[in-house]
Amino acid sequence: MVRWEPDSRGRLVEAALVLYGERGFENTTVEEIAARAGLSERTFFRYFVDKREVLFWGSASLEELLDHAVRDAPMDLSPMQIVVSALEQTGGLFEERRDGARQRQIVIAANAQLRERELIKLASLASSLADALGRRGIAVATANLAAQAGIAVFRVAFERWVDEANDLDLAALVRASFADLKDVTSGS
Amino acid sequence: MVRWEPDSRGRLVEAALVLYGERGFENTTVEEIAARAGLSERTFFRYFVDKREVLFWGSASLEELLDHAVRDAPMDLSPMQIVVSALEQTGGLFEERRDGARQRQIVIAANAQLRERELIKLASLASSLADALGRRGIAVATANLAAQAGIAVFRVAFERWVDEANDLDLAALVRASFADLKDVTSGS
Repeated sequence: MVRWEPDSRGRLVEAALVLYGERGFENTTVEEIAARAGLSERTFFRYFVDKREVLFWGSASLEELLDHAVRDAPMDLSPMQIVVSALEQTGGLFEERRDGARQRQIVIAANAQLRERELIKLASLASSLADALGRRGIAVATANLAAQAGIAVFRVAFERWVDEANDLDLAALVRASFADLKDVTSGS
Repeated sequence: MVRWEPDSRGRLVEAALVLYGERGFENTTVEEIAARAGLSERTFFRYFVDKREVLFWGSASLEELLDHAVRDAPMDLSPMQIVVSALEQTGGLFEERRDGARQRQIVIAANAQLRERELIKLASLASSLADALGRRGIAVATANLAAQAGIAVFRVAFERWVDEANDLDLAALVRASFADLKDVTSGS
């Protein structure tokens, strides 16, 4: 019998990231992840459909967070201000998981299928962000542009945040990356 | 024996788009595509590795066109001006293929795996655009932002161009979509 312990999910994620890093994503089995976390395979499958989802389960929370942030943003903000203020709030979701995020990034970078999955998740995030803007009455083309530009800002900020050499928090990097985007677009 | 005729590729693409539209991508075989084009399966496989690639073979030319356009852009342009001027030139590649582009868009929209493939191709386009900017000495973060913002502009422009109700050419729509992006980002 497996004794219940708090945060099985967190332990499975941690165990998976260590094993993916040590022996590669392809060469790691669910059995090994569960064993390293001191849990059963059955428990693993209670949390994740497969070993890939260990790397992507967080995207649902991220999508929900952005959805609520867009919905609750003050009425007087412009579309892009709404997007940037929503993205700044993702700091709360990620800030305590920087090491995990770093390990995850390395695992994903090393595997073409995982890179594709990551791109699809980001595109789906952009699309749900555009929908959320649409529900605030923003026109489709504007909502799409603001959402896609926002995700571009977020990707650059996130990559800088994951980078060891960087001491700024994610919200600050989102603001900096948005300032860069403004420079880049207004410069022409 | 199959007699050689010019533009086998074009005929295969046209036949495939008709069949994908009529009976769905999943329910169409390479044999049927070749038969409809009046060509052999062997000829099909000379041009395409599988029936999916009929929809995506053009992305290599697009990538190359953008690559050259970025390389040859005047030295005094800003990063975003380089990107936009390169994207405007894609009009030359697409302008005579609007009906095909429209049919292709419908086929892709109807199939989740094809939508994923399209996203991956667009992401790969953004990444190769960023590399091309990098080769002009533009810093990595700026190159990534300009490339990703550029692809966002291109997607919105392309969707508007494919839309039946629209009489503007692709280059004009790229400029309009970029103007929208400037509005959206400067408004905040």
